[in-house]
Amino acid sequence: MTESLSWQEVAARSERLAPRLRAHLLLTPFVRFDAFSDELGAEVLVKCEHLQRTGSFKARGALAKLLTLTDAERQAGVVTASTGNHGLGVGNALATLGGRGIVYLPENASPSKVAALRRFGLELRAEGNDSGVLEPKARAFAAEHGLTYVPPYNDPDVIAGQGTLAVEILEQLAGAPLDAVMVAVGGGGLISGVAAVLKKHRPGIKVYGAAPLRDDAMAASVRAGKIVLVDAGDTLSDGTAGSVEPGSITFPLCRDLVDDWILVDEDAIADALRTVIDTEHQLIEGSAALAFAAARARRTELRGQRVAIVSCGANISSASLAAALH
Amino acid sequence: MTESLSWQEVAARSERLAPRLRAHLLLTPFVRFDAFSDELGAEVLVKCEHLQRTGSFKARGALAKLLTLTDAERQAGVVTASTGNHGLGVGNALATLGGRGIVYLPENASPSKVAALRRFGLELRAEGNDSGVLEPKARAFAAEHGLTYVPPYNDPDVIAGQGTLAVEILEQLAGAPLDAVMVAVGGGGLISGVAAVLKKHRPGIKVYGAAPLRDDAMAASVRAGKIVLVDAGDTLSDGTAGSVEPGSITFPLCRDLVDDWILVDEDAIADALRTVIDTEHQLIEGSAALAFAAARARRTELRGQRVAIVSCGANISSASLAAALH
Repeated sequence: MTESLSWQEVAARSERLAPRLRAHLLLTPFVRFDAFSDELGAEVLVKCEHLQRTGSFKARGALAKLLTLTDAERQAGVVTASTGNHGLGVGNALATLGGRGIVYLPENASPSKVAALRRFGLELRAEGNDSGVLEPKARAFAAEHGLTYVPPYNDPDVIAGQGTLAVEILEQLAGAPLDAVMVAVGGGGLISGVAAVLKKHRPGIKVYGAAPLRDDAMAASVRAGKIVLVDAGDTLSDGTAGSVEPGSITFPLCRDLVDDWILVDEDAIADALRTVIDTEHQLIEGSAALAFAAARARRTELRGQRVAIVSCGANISSASLAAALH
Repeated sequence: MTESLSWQEVAARSERLAPRLRAHLLLTPFVRFDAFSDELGAEVLVKCEHLQRTGSFKARGALAKLLTLTDAERQAGVVTASTGNHGLGVGNALATLGGRGIVYLPENASPSKVAALRRFGLELRAEGNDSGVLEPKARAFAAEHGLTYVPPYNDPDVIAGQGTLAVEILEQLAGAPLDAVMVAVGGGGLISGVAAVLKKHRPGIKVYGAAPLRDDAMAASVRAGKIVLVDAGDTLSDGTAGSVEPGSITFPLCRDLVDDWILVDEDAIADALRTVIDTEHQLIEGSAALAFAAARARRTELRGQRVAIVSCGANISSASLAAALH
């Protein structure tokens, strides 16, 4: 794992992975959202990863990573530290391929998240309430016992796994033009994979990274020219929350592949979530609403274009949803 | 159209219609909901009509009805009076088959509902704010101008159209056993069609009708042995709200085919909606949550059984959703 992983290599890995993931995951719809199209005066095409197994694109990266392991390695055990979409992705991958999974999680993790992980048969280790230390603990445990740690984004296979959704977008476009793509950015695994695949085949597609104004670690890092810490606040886009790991291979990929960054305030994220419910009657999580809000923020420059929005997940609690809807 | 329409004839029509509707509508998933299954100690299999085109099973009945018309009849115009799922179903059917549609709606209809109808190219006639008089007005207009009125449930073809989802359930079961089915009941079109098809092929399946405690017109009518008016209150299950039309052919079908009735209070409907969001991350409307709540209410007798829940729609506004989640 080195900073010199080229985006061309990421794209090639995504393309090799796509048919293997297709056997186990859903080919998610890529469909026009009529009300958003009307509102923006653009063709708004939505990649519905909120309908993916586990409710998020993270099922792709986790499965991609676990496909690189031998049966013996998976049986010995894989370790991760996420109670969210990545944890569910690892659980789903193990349910598909077989193997043992250990998840570090905070003692105050929500009961519904814990129940969802348990249903995948994962072993749960509750360790304190500081989620910041769980990842190092999980890594250390894996190293100590010769097990495999599965990172949420800083990993070539995980990134290439996320990129398979762009392989699908290209197929689903069936040669039709596309001007731009909107992708929510947290650690940058999703946009790195998506941008690599699209830039290889359609270098003219403008790749926009969307981040919450309150928690824009990767955007701030790219502006600074190096990975920096930001003073992050709570955001409805909890799926993108958190700092960028020092040395993450997603940093140079984002720096080189993302054409423009859009920072979105919390009201705009909640408004977009509300609009998707009212017009499409689909549930999306905050990080997906972030991408819709970003498109809205740039409606002037997108007018008349064909724009893909990656609707990355649906895992929102009823409590967060109630708060977002006021 | 007569009370003597037999359920065997309904089932036969549904079976003839199923392949024709399949060409234009979605074969919706019929999948196990793990968290509900765990909670009830039962196999809970969900027919996901909330993922149907237009966000509701009503797309089936409307398309079934419009398929019985000639091109000339559709071009002359069809008339209906629904701003909800039935109106969207008629719009979708006309978008599919071609033709002119006229929808009577109240002047205070919500802008998002109006926009959704407009996107289907329907002609809208706002007439006062008393939705009770819109249906007679629509019928009268159709009669006066020789156009076709499309009733929301009191029609053999509409009922048979709804029944096609049970044809799919039987296919999707692929011979596996099924003990019971839970269906929300308003005018009774959905449960009449579903029960007719299931009783024909699997007479042992127990058909449960679910109704809001506050608005149980059909259940009360069956108890009374004749169609009666109930003093209805507002319900989160707005999709099932409203009285049963005098002489409706759904009354004898419900009387003869529904094995048991389950009345559900508003808190239980909201709780079920919340649980589907928290465990499956899918958006359903109140009338769909009603069927989940009914299954919960009968958990003791359903334990160990295989139970189908018809999740009938997803058309809930963000405002209603916010209210339901508190």
